[in-house]
Amino acid sequence: MTTTAKAFGTSGAKENLKPLTVDRREVQTNDVEIDILYCGVCHSDLHTARNEWGGTVYPNVPGHEIVGRITKVGAGVTKFKVGELAGVGCMVDSCRTCESCKEGLEQYCENGNIQTYNGHDKHLNQQTFGGYSERVVVDQDFVLRIPSNLDLASTAPLLCAGITTYSPLRHWHVGPGQKVGVVGIGGLGHMAVKIAKAMGAYVVVITTSASKVDDAKRLGADEIILSTDEAQMHANVGSLHFILDCVSAQHDINAYLSLLKRDGSLTLVGAPEYPLPVAPFSLIPARKSFSGSMIGGIAETQEMLDFCGEHNIVSDIELIRMQDINEAYERLLKGDVKYRFVIDIESLKN
Amino acid sequence: MTTTAKAFGTSGAKENLKPLTVDRREVQTNDVEIDILYCGVCHSDLHTARNEWGGTVYPNVPGHEIVGRITKVGAGVTKFKVGELAGVGCMVDSCRTCESCKEGLEQYCENGNIQTYNGHDKHLNQQTFGGYSERVVVDQDFVLRIPSNLDLASTAPLLCAGITTYSPLRHWHVGPGQKVGVVGIGGLGHMAVKIAKAMGAYVVVITTSASKVDDAKRLGADEIILSTDEAQMHANVGSLHFILDCVSAQHDINAYLSLLKRDGSLTLVGAPEYPLPVAPFSLIPARKSFSGSMIGGIAETQEMLDFCGEHNIVSDIELIRMQDINEAYERLLKGDVKYRFVIDIESLKN
Repeated sequence: MTTTAKAFGTSGAKENLKPLTVDRREVQTNDVEIDILYCGVCHSDLHTARNEWGGTVYPNVPGHEIVGRITKVGAGVTKFKVGELAGVGCMVDSCRTCESCKEGLEQYCENGNIQTYNGHDKHLNQQTFGGYSERVVVDQDFVLRIPSNLDLASTAPLLCAGITTYSPLRHWHVGPGQKVGVVGIGGLGHMAVKIAKAMGAYVVVITTSASKVDDAKRLGADEIILSTDEAQMHANVGSLHFILDCVSAQHDINAYLSLLKRDGSLTLVGAPEYPLPVAPFSLIPARKSFSGSMIGGIAETQEMLDFCGEHNIVSDIELIRMQDINEAYERLLKGDVKYRFVIDIESLKN
Repeated sequence: MTTTAKAFGTSGAKENLKPLTVDRREVQTNDVEIDILYCGVCHSDLHTARNEWGGTVYPNVPGHEIVGRITKVGAGVTKFKVGELAGVGCMVDSCRTCESCKEGLEQYCENGNIQTYNGHDKHLNQQTFGGYSERVVVDQDFVLRIPSNLDLASTAPLLCAGITTYSPLRHWHVGPGQKVGVVGIGGLGHMAVKIAKAMGAYVVVITTSASKVDDAKRLGADEIILSTDEAQMHANVGSLHFILDCVSAQHDINAYLSLLKRDGSLTLVGAPEYPLPVAPFSLIPARKSFSGSMIGGIAETQEMLDFCGEHNIVSDIELIRMQDINEAYERLLKGDVKYRFVIDIESLKN
């Protein structure tokens, strides 16, 4: 009932990624089998491969920004046909019965959704294996349609970086007439700039790095604040309706909260390792919020992909071979990528 | 153009409060003169008297939970008549032109509203003096109507403790079908329990102190969680729609955030002195918010007073003489009051 698929993964926290094989289940009634063409490289891949969040089950095969072509469908599959493009993001299943799942918010499944890798595959009773692999089998309800007009490799990162930024921008009602701050221009932040701009907002990039000013403008930013320049920060106090904080390193949240207008929210999508000190007087005097958001639901992920198709939005990527993944991780740690590595899975197959 | 009023105040951060006199302006066209009958004692009074927040101008006369009777009105006053009861809260004026003021949110005035004490009185070009005094003169737009059915002394704390808790409960849509947590049962928290209950919510008090269980029930709590009991805390993870945090001391925000349901907000109205560390994973996995709120606007304060009149809600108080204020401050520091000191201003007059 299983087939063998080539993959790349690790056998321990301190090991490099290397070739291995994993079992994929035969398609069940509601399953879709996807021949993977491209897979984006998310910082979560590295955290999990190296067990930095704890709980990694080895061998681990990362990858949750998957695009490919459908090669087989189960008898009950109504949403997809063989030969179509398809995508898979961070989740491959959820409980489907809790309040969050019923509201289409599978990312907040109260019983724990099934992550694309390092989740628990109930069919094979083993850990799930991600997209650093030639093939994946996923229930149709967790498979996404891919717009046909976008460059396919550059579309892969939408499945995580795209939805992670799109969902909070929608949830906090970003749109025309609003000034929206984006902190941190990396894999997530560069998507946030493009998406917020397409939503009609006036986009303000806040960066520590003067070297990113030109690039921020190219991505669509209307204005840039250098956070290391106290005068610029001071001049922009109370000016932003919403801030999406895409920084994974420790940083001074209070400085960014000061830029919000009354009733504004600063929403974390990057996940710094340690708690961030928040001064009560950063929140109380203008009813501000410090909040967090995690990926998005399946329906919203489809909405995001359709939105990106309509607005011609993809990720800026650097295409790599599967064999270059360990080097790519090292460069990722240094922030040396504009702005997302995507693996050409063809390199794994040959 | 001024009259002299008896008051109690301090001449320095390390001084006790003592009798002094202050100037009050003669009523101007839009002014109301109020003979003060009762004034509540807020922890902010103590912070300001002792310059714990910095910026105190001496002499300082605290007090912003003022109720009394109108003795004089200016020619332009249309809202009030001599002989009526009236209240004054934390503000006596604001810019009236900024976005917040235009929306009736004078508490968030972008040009800085005029606080009832230690603000800047533009008429007399001196600091404003609060309610530890026999008389006050205030623009009619910052004077509140007092419901006639409530005990007057017990009504005074509604002007700060009442509105400070009512406003966030309304803003975050607390009502029937919701489980609402209240952390910290003191001057603010005991009002929050009464008001949230009257709004129709199921009220859960979260306290460190087993000794407060009976009192929390008497105040109207449906359930009590002892935060020092790990099993109780664990059993209530993800159970609350909203938490109002009324604690002014340092405390572990992450433990309380864990009690929120998806999309819940924990809102600070107490103001701990130092930043509170917030773990990103306390917010991100269920799109939670950590927020703050400050008093309420004038229209909302009137709404709160009318609501309290309708629901027969007042503060639990301990009535003191003006001469006992220094002792009351010491007891306040120990949390030794159920739940608000109110000064009988008659004691100052004789």
